[in-house]
Order: sequence, then C-alpha cells, then structure tokens
Amino acid sequence: MNERFAIKAYLSQCAELIEASLKQSLPAEWDVPARLREAMLYSLEAGGKRIRPALVLSAAEAVLGQDDAKNAALPVACAVEFIHTYSLVHDDLPAMDNDDYRRGKLTNHKVFGEAMAILAGDALLTHAFHLIPQAARRGGVSAETALAIVEDLAMLAGAPGMVGGQVADMQGEQGITSISELEYIHLHKTSDLIAFSVMAGGRIGGATEKQLELLARYGRNIGLAFQIQDDILDLIGDETKLGKKTNSDVEQNKVTYPFLIGIEESKAQVERLTQEAKSAVLEAGFAAPERLLEIADYLVGRDH
Amino acid sequence: MNERFAIKAYLSQCAELIEASLKQSLPAEWDVPARLREAMLYSLEAGGKRIRPALVLSAAEAVLGQDDAKNAALPVACAVEFIHTYSLVHDDLPAMDNDDYRRGKLTNHKVFGEAMAILAGDALLTHAFHLIPQAARRGGVSAETALAIVEDLAMLAGAPGMVGGQVADMQGEQGITSISELEYIHLHKTSDLIAFSVMAGGRIGGATEKQLELLARYGRNIGLAFQIQDDILDLIGDETKLGKKTNSDVEQNKVTYPFLIGIEESKAQVERLTQEAKSAVLEAGFAAPERLLEIADYLVGRDH
Repeated sequence: MNERFAIKAYLSQCAELIEASLKQSLPAEWDVPARLREAMLYSLEAGGKRIRPALVLSAAEAVLGQDDAKNAALPVACAVEFIHTYSLVHDDLPAMDNDDYRRGKLTNHKVFGEAMAILAGDALLTHAFHLIPQAARRGGVSAETALAIVEDLAMLAGAPGMVGGQVADMQGEQGITSISELEYIHLHKTSDLIAFSVMAGGRIGGATEKQLELLARYGRNIGLAFQIQDDILDLIGDETKLGKKTNSDVEQNKVTYPFLIGIEESKAQVERLTQEAKSAVLEAGFAAPERLLEIADYLVGRDH
Repeated sequence: MNERFAIKAYLSQCAELIEASLKQSLPAEWDVPARLREAMLYSLEAGGKRIRPALVLSAAEAVLGQDDAKNAALPVACAVEFIHTYSLVHDDLPAMDNDDYRRGKLTNHKVFGEAMAILAGDALLTHAFHLIPQAARRGGVSAETALAIVEDLAMLAGAPGMVGGQVADMQGEQGITSISELEYIHLHKTSDLIAFSVMAGGRIGGATEKQLELLARYGRNIGLAFQIQDDILDLIGDETKLGKKTNSDVEQNKVTYPFLIGIEESKAQVERLTQEAKSAVLEAGFAAPERLLEIADYLVGRDH
C-alpha cells in the first residue's frame, strides 16, 4: 500500500497548489459585485478531490518528465475546476436535480438564491476562458498551444461534450434501457472533461498528436471507470466515508451500471477500463508515466 | 436621409451574412442531442438587429479600410451573437425576468422547458469560445490575436462585465436612486459586449493599442446611448414599430434615465454620448471610419 500512500500524498499536494491558485484566480482589482464574487468563491472553495486539475498537472509532468511543469499548467488546471464547479452549480438548480446539499454544504442556490446561482455559474464558466490565455503569459506555452486548449475545452465542455451529456442524462430520466445509452451519458457528462484535462496537460508538456490521442483514450477510460465506481459505491459503500447516504440511486430510480449488468460485472468493467487506460499511457512512451498509472489505480481503489 | 438609407442597407447585408454563418456555426457532424441543438438554434435564429456582430465586421473594415475583412471576422462576429443569445435565454428564465415572449416569439424555456433553457444557454456561451480560434484558422489572424480576443471576451462577458451588470441590475430592482448606479448597470450589462465587439474587429484589422482604446471608448458610449434610447422609446415610441408595448418600464416600476433625469435631459445625454463616440473614431485615424460614424448616428435615430 506504499504506492497508494504516495499517490494520495501527491494528489493532496496538487489539491493544495490548486486551492491556493483558485483563491487568486479572480483578480482582486476587478470591479465585481460583492455578492457575485462571494457566490462564485463559495462553490469554488466547497472542496472536492480536485481530480481534474490534478490530472492537468500530472499529464504535463508525465510528458515533460519533470516536476516543474506545474507553474505553466496551473492556470489551465484552475480553468478545469471553474468549469467543473459551474456544472455542479447549474446541476443542483431546482429546474435540474433540485439538490439542497452538496458535500455536506448547502448548494449555491440555497444560499444565494436561484437567479444568483444561474449567474454565478455563467460567470464561472466564462472565467475559465480568461484563465487559459494566462498559461501563455507565464511562458513555456505558445499562443498556438493555448488557443488549441481553448478550442478543446469549448468542444469537450460544450454541446457535443459535457452539456450534451447532461442533456442526455436529463432525457434519460424518462427511462434508459441499454448500456450504450448509459455509456453515452457518462462519456460526455464525466469523461469528456477528464479527457480534456489530460489532453491540456499533454499540450502544455509538448505531447505529439499520437500522444494526445492516447491521453484522450486514458481520460475517457478512467472517466467511465470513475463513474461506474461511483455507482458501485452508492450501492455498497461506507456512508461515513462517502459523506452521503448509500442507495440514493435506487431510491431515485436511477438507472446505473449495477442495475443494468449487476455488481460483479460492473466491477469487472471498472477493472477492464482501468487496464485500458494504463495501456494507453504505457503505449505513449512518456518520460514519466508513473503518476498517471497510479492515479488510474487510485480511482478504482478509492472507497469514497 | 440618404446616408440613413445606406447604413440600413449595409447593416441588413451584415445581418444576412451573419445569419447564414450562424446556421453553420454548430458543426453538423457533431453528435449533439437533437433537442439541445434545436433549443440552441431556436434562440440563435430568433432574429434581432445583429448590431453586435455587425460592429465586429464594421470595426475590422474601418481599420483595414477595405471591404474584405468580413471573412476573417465572421467567426468572431458569430461568437458575439452566441454570447448575446445565451444572455437573453438566461435572462428570460423564471428565476430571472420570467418572460414568456421575446420579439413576439415564445421564450426558450416556454418551448423547451427550464432545464433545457439553462443548458442551451450554457452550450451557447461555451460554443462562442469554440468559434474564436476559427478566425486564426482562416488566416489573416495570428494565434496571439485570437487569444487576446478570447481573453477580452471572457472578461467583458464575465463577472467584471456583462454578468456583473446583470447581477447589479437584479440587485438594483430593490431600488436604484442615482444615475451612477444606473450607469454601472448599463455600462456592464450592455456596453461591455458592444465594446468587445468593436475591439475584436479592431484586433482582427490590426489596430494599434491606442486605436483599441478609442474603439473601446466608442463602444462604451454607443452602448450607453443605445440603452438610454431604449428607455426613451419605451416611454414615447410607436408600439407597432417597436413590436412591444410602451410604458412597460413604468408598469414594472423600473428605474430608467427618463425617470431619474427626465425625457429632455435623457435625449441630450444620448446626443452627447453619440458625439463622444464619433470623436473617438475620428481621433483614431482609421482608414475608413464612415461605417462606424454612421452606425453611431443610426442607433440614436432609430425608432425601434
């Protein structure tokens, strides 16, 4: 379990870096209505594992083979967290999932009201695209690379990506019957932003087109594994570790992998997807692939 | 009135170009849920004067002094319209202005439901940032310039810009008493995106820093003039030309320029702001300033 300990320490260190950077990511000198700034920071600082931004940093370091890629990659890592956060704020809205709590805290609209939560989400989403050009300013990243990252993010977080997955999820509540429908939802709702994260890190590290493709494959696979693992934990996890009630999917009549193919087959899928993700990383021939391999294992092994 | 006729014809020609381009702006080969695509196009195609994108094209042509700047500028012009459209979709939501109709058509959420309207707005906003890099692909625009346009848009449409103005407007419903509060709202809610439009056109045309500053001043001034003119038309306009009822601001207890400083003084303000906008353009020494000068006059003279 030493390896597991090491990767947890590495992810904590990434999370600390990212949280310090998130706090400064909305320029203090900007004339922003106080309550809007407060609403944005409330959800940004509400925690979470910061897996997506950590993947930006890890992928950049995997390609470069050195520990000093973090500085150039940090603005992009923060951008991913801005996108992830806005998506949670909007998902929780009364017209969407209508959730009152997230990670044990009141959701944005419960604290700031529905109109402000919509606008704070819009502002978080927009600000992600202000952060990416800063990677070019810090040096080490060309304008061409930063622009390619902007284009990737706009696609993978947009209509053909995360938002499309969210729409399919919403429509699916009327009855999903096949694994392929469920896979579509997870691939877009969850995997696309994870694939973006490792591709962006790869671009910053100077990955080749072939390596970017393999990073995308890694991202899609661990994203899907992550989601199925979530479904499994909802059924058989430890409520105190999860920080939320188990069996909520069953109570909400949510169609999940375990529901469609059973627990054992779901676990086998997670294992298979994780192996495929790791193969992609090994095939890419990165200077330092270890972190990415460890993160893939960590996501399967997690109990919360 | 010949000049007025010419500028109307020019703006119509721009609107046609933009509408043709908007129709193709969401790649047909993208695997987007059909209903989401429909919801996005519904509001994109709902008309309007297309003033903002026309300003992108006009500013590029003013700087370059030629009529062929439109090709490189079109993706950015469309991006502005995507942003403007998303802002209307979200503004109309029940939690915000709760409007059932816009330009005589049912609002997005009345047709597609509230959840879809939120997501379609998110997708429109995100897609704007997919369009800007395409200006670099078409040639004539460097990656550095496209990246600067991304950064401008993310600022002027975000928390310190349009969204901030929207928040201030929402908070102001609890009672604005001063012109400076009202000016803050209009400058951000309306002027910032207009200033972005002319700056982006300027960047594409190769404007100097000083010229960009003057374009921003032009944009802010005509944006504010446009908004005050709207307030005036709501009081004394012709309902058939406006396509909406007059006196709606009074009925909704909205604090407007005419309410705070009277009709005559409001008209004088519109005149003063228009002159300041035109001075900025003249000071910039553009190769072909005529269109921008005519558009400033057109916006004051309009009756709908």
